[in-house]
Amino acid sequence: MITRDDLAARDAQDPLASFRDAYVLPDGVIYLDGNSLGALPHEARTRLHDVIEREWGRDLIRSWTKNDWIGLPARVGDKIGRLIGAAPGQTVAADSISVNLFKLLAAALQLRPGRTTIVTEEGNFPTDLYIAQGLTGLIERLGGTQFKLRYADPLDIPATLDDDVAVVMLTHVDFKSGRSHDMAAVTAAAHLHGALMLWDLSHSAGAVPVDLDGCNADLAVGCGYKYLNGGPGAPAFLYAAARHQDAIDPALAGWMGHAAPFEFSPDYRPAPGIARMLVGTPPVLSMAALEIGVDGLIAADMTRLRAKSLALTGTFMDLVEQELGDAFGIMTPRGEHDRGSQVSLTHRHGYAIARALIDRGVIPDFRAPDVLRLGFTPLYLRFVDLWDAVAILKDIMATGAWDRADYKVRAAVT
Amino acid sequence: MITRDDLAARDAQDPLASFRDAYVLPDGVIYLDGNSLGALPHEARTRLHDVIEREWGRDLIRSWTKNDWIGLPARVGDKIGRLIGAAPGQTVAADSISVNLFKLLAAALQLRPGRTTIVTEEGNFPTDLYIAQGLTGLIERLGGTQFKLRYADPLDIPATLDDDVAVVMLTHVDFKSGRSHDMAAVTAAAHLHGALMLWDLSHSAGAVPVDLDGCNADLAVGCGYKYLNGGPGAPAFLYAAARHQDAIDPALAGWMGHAAPFEFSPDYRPAPGIARMLVGTPPVLSMAALEIGVDGLIAADMTRLRAKSLALTGTFMDLVEQELGDAFGIMTPRGEHDRGSQVSLTHRHGYAIARALIDRGVIPDFRAPDVLRLGFTPLYLRFVDLWDAVAILKDIMATGAWDRADYKVRAAVT
Repeated sequence: MITRDDLAARDAQDPLASFRDAYVLPDGVIYLDGNSLGALPHEARTRLHDVIEREWGRDLIRSWTKNDWIGLPARVGDKIGRLIGAAPGQTVAADSISVNLFKLLAAALQLRPGRTTIVTEEGNFPTDLYIAQGLTGLIERLGGTQFKLRYADPLDIPATLDDDVAVVMLTHVDFKSGRSHDMAAVTAAAHLHGALMLWDLSHSAGAVPVDLDGCNADLAVGCGYKYLNGGPGAPAFLYAAARHQDAIDPALAGWMGHAAPFEFSPDYRPAPGIARMLVGTPPVLSMAALEIGVDGLIAADMTRLRAKSLALTGTFMDLVEQELGDAFGIMTPRGEHDRGSQVSLTHRHGYAIARALIDRGVIPDFRAPDVLRLGFTPLYLRFVDLWDAVAILKDIMATGAWDRADYKVRAAVT
Repeated sequence: MITRDDLAARDAQDPLASFRDAYVLPDGVIYLDGNSLGALPHEARTRLHDVIEREWGRDLIRSWTKNDWIGLPARVGDKIGRLIGAAPGQTVAADSISVNLFKLLAAALQLRPGRTTIVTEEGNFPTDLYIAQGLTGLIERLGGTQFKLRYADPLDIPATLDDDVAVVMLTHVDFKSGRSHDMAAVTAAAHLHGALMLWDLSHSAGAVPVDLDGCNADLAVGCGYKYLNGGPGAPAFLYAAARHQDAIDPALAGWMGHAAPFEFSPDYRPAPGIARMLVGTPPVLSMAALEIGVDGLIAADMTRLRAKSLALTGTFMDLVEQELGDAFGIMTPRGEHDRGSQVSLTHRHGYAIARALIDRGVIPDFRAPDVLRLGFTPLYLRFVDLWDAVAILKDIMATGAWDRADYKVRAAVT
């Protein structure tokens, strides 16, 4: 039997406990949605104040050089690289996940001429599929190759591969179930067929250790506003392995990716290396906040974060079983190598239960049709929070507090 | 002869004079670069503080609905629409100018099947050309139509048009010279050949009145961080005339443009109307600042702004001639219908002179090889500022203060 005292004892011994103080966490809230929007670091308030008052307000246009706005995408990118096993010069912070996927899918098709298949999963995050559909639709409408999107069995990716596959595009940790792919094994399987491997790290970066270089991955994208705590709509990132960079003719060829952006030449000439993947002017305020978020993760260290994350998610699953029996299905795998930093519970009244939880200060996510998605952010979550969240869930189920007509009306929830 | 007293008298009668108080303007600075980065509105500081503390820090993920983050792109877009003659439902704030150009060029090629030419000017803003090169390169590499980029004579666009032209892509006010196209006439000429008209309003929106709907324009993009005062790297905007929207299959098909983004369907189904042109999650901090910038322009009124802008630029050119004779070439046309809100002076030592001006608190822009680009922002510039800037320029020229070795070393200037 796990008790609240046991969990309080774990908090007392948690080497990451003090990191919680670095984040703004509203009173009366147990925030289990850091995988949708990370909490505000206190340091981000300070930094944003400085960017607004001094860099924008006072230094104005001079900030591009004086305060190195021009260096933000590469600098923040390299910092993110430290969290995902990418040596410097392979990662940039820029644009949205969707736009970055477009750039990299277009690059992948170019790098594997003659191949016409993109392999992915039907359960991949929808925007990843949409971007592939948009790109292949564009090419086809304008008279080009008819590329095909092929859905793989998530539990047996290699079975779907053949030598027509240009690129395998997968999300490392599934947004819905929290199940994780074996990055090294799947990448190797793709390479066996000469295909490129493109990882979406939206639910991995800052949540689980990733070793892109070590796995010999080719391409990757990820999210700035989830576990990286970069703030709402923070810029995303993209990674392209050094060995591929100079062979990419960017589809989105913008001034920031030009070899000499201030030459104002009418002809595009891609910058050497990863810089060519930049397009337009970055949103500086959002980029500055992202840098602070990433700094926090570097300071905490991914190995320590992963250890706590596994303890949090494992303990939470144990607690749900102990306190709630089989009231909920547990969609997330138990194996430590098979899951990210979230636990997904299923219940046919999941949406109403999510609404009831929110009204009691426990903030989960809901994913249709029946998934309560709970993110566990080791930077700012305590073990006692697990107990308190489960206690509230138990009370909601015991009292039927979720069974209200207004809770059943679906509104847009992100 | 114009005197400083004359200009002080004009300030006393200026109906927009009080708007200056709404912007942060550093002491000792005459800011003639609002066309590269607009000044910080005081109100943006307040708004950003609230977005950071309350919306991100306290309300967290709930802000997507509670604080209508989800509505930002359309709401800010429609406000921008009021400045550019676009009825609601045709403009969204999103992404960068470059990315938006890609979306619209791809749409234009789809809407004019069989046509293979994009007409533009060689002197167009370089990123506009790069984006066209990137798009056509992508299509060609992947086996599609070989599209051609054709450069028109800026003074005679119609002469370049024929029935192979799918789209004419021009910047309304030239970034370097400040020369303005006749939007209605050029749009009509494009339509005469069945081509679509795509306007880049980066140096127009918030600077000169634009009437996209009235001119029957098809597509447009523009900048959020110049005259709209949206802050560094603020999101850009795009316009697609209502009559075209539902025929566009977005090349960049992302979740924000889906008909039911929270359904998490694996198949892309474009949202009705302009919303389909959205792609990924918007940078909320930067978007919030942009909204405040746009509000300021709406309050000031584009007709009043244009009247003051013409007076500022006209008076400045008169003053340069009066005080400096023919020391500088004046690249910007004198005709009131032919110019935007900037004056471009040419001098073979333009770069060093720009550096000397900056050290004296007058902030211009420099565009290679020899252009001093001076932006006149009627919201926060005074007539006496013209006198003082010219006096400093005159002193720099008379004393040879610009003639320093360190001023001649070119650094990146945006």
